Amino acid sequence: MMVQTIFEQIQLKKSFLCLGLDPDLEKMPAHLVNSSQEPLFDFCKTIVDHVQHLCVAVKINTAFFEAYGVQGYVALEKLIQYIKSHYPELFTIADAKRGDIGNTSLRYAKAFFETMPFDAITIAPYMGKDSVEPFLTYKDKHAILLALTSNEGATDFQLETKNSDSLYKQVLTKSQTWNNAKQLMYVVGATKAEHLAEIRKLVPDAFLLVPGVGAQGGSLEEVFLHGANENIGLLVNSSRGILYAGNDEDFAEAALKAANELQQQMENLLR
Amino acid sequence: MMVQTIFEQIQLKKSFLCLGLDPDLEKMPAHLVNSSQEPLFDFCKTIVDHVQHLCVAVKINTAFFEAYGVQGYVALEKLIQYIKSHYPELFTIADAKRGDIGNTSLRYAKAFFETMPFDAITIAPYMGKDSVEPFLTYKDKHAILLALTSNEGATDFQLETKNSDSLYKQVLTKSQTWNNAKQLMYVVGATKAEHLAEIRKLVPDAFLLVPGVGAQGGSLEEVFLHGANENIGLLVNSSRGILYAGNDEDFAEAALKAANELQQQMENLLR
Repeated sequence: MMVQTIFEQIQLKKSFLCLGLDPDLEKMPAHLVNSSQEPLFDFCKTIVDHVQHLCVAVKINTAFFEAYGVQGYVALEKLIQYIKSHYPELFTIADAKRGDIGNTSLRYAKAFFETMPFDAITIAPYMGKDSVEPFLTYKDKHAILLALTSNEGATDFQLETKNSDSLYKQVLTKSQTWNNAKQLMYVVGATKAEHLAEIRKLVPDAFLLVPGVGAQGGSLEEVFLHGANENIGLLVNSSRGILYAGNDEDFAEAALKAANELQQQMENLLR
Repeated sequence: MMVQTIFEQIQLKKSFLCLGLDPDLEKMPAHLVNSSQEPLFDFCKTIVDHVQHLCVAVKINTAFFEAYGVQGYVALEKLIQYIKSHYPELFTIADAKRGDIGNTSLRYAKAFFETMPFDAITIAPYMGKDSVEPFLTYKDKHAILLALTSNEGATDFQLETKNSDSLYKQVLTKSQTWNNAKQLMYVVGATKAEHLAEIRKLVPDAFLLVPGVGAQGGSLEEVFLHGANENIGLLVNSSRGILYAGNDEDFAEAALKAANELQQQMENLLR
């Protein structure tokens, strides 16, 4: 998907919401887990069907499927195929945190861009240029590099300095010199909003995938104030806040309500 | 598996060889690809059956299975189950380069340590402590952190300095302070053997997983000279050099010959 299309969807839907799908059998409504043959797929499908008009992107967290082995993998493939065929306007992200030497990254690119039709995949940039570029050889597909993540461990290496640029700034700056860098996006946690203004100086045009609003405590207003660019350039993710807004028969309506509140906040900011 | 067991196997087999399984349909013998219903599994099983007595560890590269979708994932599960039940003395590594925020890393740990019975998994340490510790809560299971990798891109961030310790040294030093750090191992490329002496000062006791001998040009002698400790502390990986030593009906014998040569070199070094 072209970046321009994402921007058009943001304008159309008055939303820059990314729906995060982290399906957890222990948090899902018990009636669904007990009655469904395919609870991972059925739960995610129901949520997507109810909130797709309020979001512009969907991020599928692969770990929550891999944990269930082959059965989980079947659900993962079925889910991305379902979303792609029913809601082709949604930007689809495999939140998979992959990245390896070139010939291995090529295989991951094949897995997520050919075998499954994702538009983008999240990548840990630790192994550098040749671990990322294989993903960028696919036209209109995107690699979303971890830059400054929302978790506590972000201070261990990403924010470490010792008289030099911190690692996350090195990742932003250096990756912009790589081949097809226009297809790069970056993960920046909402809990690190104070760094967003500086990040925007380094990557003025790139889309940022922003987790950490809601359960992790980040502020949507702060993110928008410091992170928005001419094309908005933000995909703010909410996973648990929508998925588990309710956990009985009304879970889909509760999810709709939670997504609607976020979309309303976004519409106000977009004015 | 306990580290002591790995050391005992090294002494018994006079080898510190790790067999890397990166099955590639385009490089496998054509007769096998054409005749087998499960070429990924059958190819890997045949190689393992032929060379298992010469190695102490097996490293399965998950990307080469994920590239083929559900079918690949079925082969991956079948392969690790086969190896674990037939050769329980082999140390099994999922070369998966995972790592995410804590509640997601927990799911990956479940996938690779419970759903599949691997002994260890490779992890990209970019997200820090809370992305790694979930893997270390499993008794006798191991997280193998990327430290200094064998590829060109290692110079992008891992070896970057600017008046401070390079990133890979920060990873080694800081990770040793984490909970259950005794279950950590590290990836150090054979192509970076000149750094091994310094690495040994920082992590004297840890096992190092060393790719890059063979196709990538690293020297086994250099690795042993600078990297071995009292428990040897090295698992030197060979993938393509063994898997694709031959590509016709004799591929298993060619693999055996290639693995045998490496084991012989190791036996000489261990004297």
